Amino acid sequence: MGMYEQLKQSVYESNMELTDRGLVIFTWGNVSGYDPDQGVIAIKPSGVEYEHMKPGDMVILDLEGNVIEGDLKPSSDTPTHLELYRNFKNIRGIVHTHSEWATSWAQAGRAIPPFGTTHADYFYGEVPITRELTKEEVETSYELNTGKVIVETFNDLDPDAVPSVLVKGHAPFSWGTSPDNAVHNAVVLEYVAKMAFRNVVLENEKPLEQYLLDKHYFRKHGKDAYYGQG
Amino acid sequence: MGMYEQLKQSVYESNMELTDRGLVIFTWGNVSGYDPDQGVIAIKPSGVEYEHMKPGDMVILDLEGNVIEGDLKPSSDTPTHLELYRNFKNIRGIVHTHSEWATSWAQAGRAIPPFGTTHADYFYGEVPITRELTKEEVETSYELNTGKVIVETFNDLDPDAVPSVLVKGHAPFSWGTSPDNAVHNAVVLEYVAKMAFRNVVLENEKPLEQYLLDKHYFRKHGKDAYYGQG
Amino acid sequence: MGMYEQLKQSVYESNMELTDRGLVIFTWGNVSGYDPDQGVIAIKPSGVEYEHMKPGDMVILDLEGNVIEGDLKPSSDTPTHLELYRNFKNIRGIVHTHSEWATSWAQAGRAIPPFGTTHADYFYGEVPITRELTKEEVETSYELNTGKVIVETFNDLDPDAVPSVLVKGHAPFSWGTSPDNAVHNAVVLEYVAKMAFRNVVLENEKPLEQYLLDKHYFRKHGKDAYYGQG
Amino acid sequence: MGMYEQLKQSVYESNMELTDRGLVIFTWGNVSGYDPDQGVIAIKPSGVEYEHMKPGDMVILDLEGNVIEGDLKPSSDTPTHLELYRNFKNIRGIVHTHSEWATSWAQAGRAIPPFGTTHADYFYGEVPITRELTKEEVETSYELNTGKVIVETFNDLDPDAVPSVLVKGHAPFSWGTSPDNAVHNAVVLEYVAKMAFRNVVLENEKPLEQYLLDKHYFRKHGKDAYYGQG
Repeated sequence: MGMYEQLKQSVYESNMELTDRGLVIFTWGNVSGYDPDQGVIAIKPSGVEYEHMKPGDMVILDLEGNVIEGDLKPSSDTPTHLELYRNFKNIRGIVHTHSEWATSWAQAGRAIPPFGTTHADYFYGEVPITRELTKEEVETSYELNTGKVIVETFNDLDPDAVPSVLVKGHAPFSWGTSPDNAVHNAVVLEYVAKMAFRNVVLENEKPLEQYLLDKHYFRKHGKDAYYGQG
Repeated sequence: MGMYEQLKQSVYESNMELTDRGLVIFTWGNVSGYDPDQGVIAIKPSGVEYEHMKPGDMVILDLEGNVIEGDLKPSSDTPTHLELYRNFKNIRGIVHTHSEWATSWAQAGRAIPPFGTTHADYFYGEVPITRELTKEEVETSYELNTGKVIVETFNDLDPDAVPSVLVKGHAPFSWGTSPDNAVHNAVVLEYVAKMAFRNVVLENEKPLEQYLLDKHYFRKHGKDAYYGQG
Repeated sequence: MGMYEQLKQSVYESNMELTDRGLVIFTWGNVSGYDPDQGVIAIKPSGVEYEHMKPGDMVILDLEGNVIEGDLKPSSDTPTHLELYRNFKNIRGIVHTHSEWATSWAQAGRAIPPFGTTHADYFYGEVPITRELTKEEVETSYELNTGKVIVETFNDLDPDAVPSVLVKGHAPFSWGTSPDNAVHNAVVLEYVAKMAFRNVVLENEKPLEQYLLDKHYFRKHGKDAYYGQG
Repeated sequence: MGMYEQLKQSVYESNMELTDRGLVIFTWGNVSGYDPDQGVIAIKPSGVEYEHMKPGDMVILDLEGNVIEGDLKPSSDTPTHLELYRNFKNIRGIVHTHSEWATSWAQAGRAIPPFGTTHADYFYGEVPITRELTKEEVETSYELNTGKVIVETFNDLDPDAVPSVLVKGHAPFSWGTSPDNAVHNAVVLEYVAKMAFRNVVLENEKPLEQYLLDKHYFRKHGKDAYYGQG
């Protein structure tokens, strides 16, 4: 068994879960995972149909983007993933989808405010929207610049407390403590985006009170969390 | 066989039905049941995935919240359930979900008016929204206070005739004459919330005439009911 | 084999198709069929769960509402069905549901205009909405009066050319040349109601030109129809 | 084996995929394929239920509409398909559906602007809407004139770069380099139409910057494409 099999298997399974959860059709999504001990990431190959994909098709790269192992081209979004791993030190998995509800907000250029406790259970504040990339950023190293503009968006935000972002005009990225946790956060983001849309229609866009946001977030996260079996 | 097996089995099955009906993803929901003869409730354990849950995992507590039987921590929402059982004397099952349509109304801070006979078949009047909890109520005994604010909302309402509530900024609770009946009401609430949303969009938010509301509610409930096999 | 077995089987199958097509949950719907040679209708029994229903549970009645055969109470909506069969001479099947999109229009008190050719393929003009029933009509013989108000709505309309109606504040009824055809029309109504809702949101509520409505309707219906295998 | 078996099989499979993908109910859709070497198209027969259809039921016609092989009547939309094949020289498959989201835009008489990169990955600019057909065009040779008005809509557009159109008041047509690719484009159109609807509701209808549209389209199409395994 190769030295990266466990990482590949985990990333493969998380990619497959994206389709099972209805977050992607065709090849429209990718998951990567990062193993800091080995100093490598595994990522979905570019443009391969989920139904034909095998764990061994995952591509292994170092954080500079050099392919370490794999016969296929990595996802074209790989430079975005790498930029996030280089800057968000605690994350171990990243998901990119064009999931329909989160992408609708991204297309509309709007951050998703914390309208309810479902949101607050996972995201400590709004899910931000990036600024628009400039013509220059798009025409040269587009995928790397997508990563940079995400990092810029988190200059004053904690990516561990807000594990998703909407790239303006494009679609969401989510991340987490593992590939599986990143998929979990992507599923939640989609659910929250769907309900927030209805807040707009129901004409009440008042965010949660800060004390309720605090309560729900810290009920599930941090040293005083008391949700779950502990 | 233990003395609480029947209650646990019933509560387990109702918890599983929540996922089958599409009202919960992950661990986002819980059902409890109350047996007044034994003086105990059974409730879903906290943060356990539905796919791994067994009937024996249900936790047994008395109405004061003392654990009578069970190895796992009960749902973190247990104090809310207990407060409702202590105050709504006829109810035997309670459901809490973040089901997407009812939660959208809860997030928008709006009661669901009785726009049609589907609503009137189950809810004798609007499904009310609680007031916002205060900072103090949230920071101390949050889940108990959630129960108290629900009870307060029903000061002038009959919980048997309106078996659901929306907790402002949070999500719905439903109840009924059994865990199974509570799930049934939660499914109806979701359906009614979805259709009421469209009333808003179609710009007709006029509630049913009282005489039609009466007709449909009492066609199915009370001594003159004539729906079903009698 | 009893003399009504064929009718019962056909009505049973059409009732089951309602759930398969997603038009009903729980017991919220009913189909009947009319055999003019035998002078009877078969209809779903009241409040029986679809999963436990058998063909032999269908109730046989004459057009005056006398039960001819059957151990169970007929649907509480039976008087509505009978009134329609007595007045719409060519129909052989009737469907009542609370299907979510058509019911949303019914709750909003709005007829569904013919916004597109999908509508025109089945309904020669808008799907009308009834007037509100009066207090007296609701309190006495409610279900019969529901039938009467539908018939009144078609005073100047041809029920064969517009095989559905929305009962204001309540839900749709559809009919057709057989129980199966009535279900087909109910499915189409739901589809058309869903798309028409989006016309409202997209702020273009201009009905089809009459000549295009004519073209599509008569492409599929009447002596010059040329759709299908002929 | 007959000389057209491969074409029939391919067109049959693509017709079946339409239902699997949820783009059609009943008989509401058709796919054709064109083989320029044999100079014929294969198309779905008119009004045949998908569940009963066999590959051998596909009808073979030449580009003038003469039936070359087949016992059934071809789709009533055949003249539209033929007009498109005669004018859009590179296309090898055509799909017509009444898929709910794209049809909603067609009914609303609105082109779908390129609001996001999902759109730009497949459509180089807005998905256009045709003008309304005149009374004369509808009453004589309606299906042929539908084709002509689509061709007219592309007078200044490249059908290879924008492989879909909305026929005003009616529904979409999509095409591609094969029947399968045409279905793929129809699925994407539906997804894009759904998300664009939400842009309207979220009140941001600003199209993508041209440089971002260019980037995404040419990342996947043309000589500099770098998406996929190449």
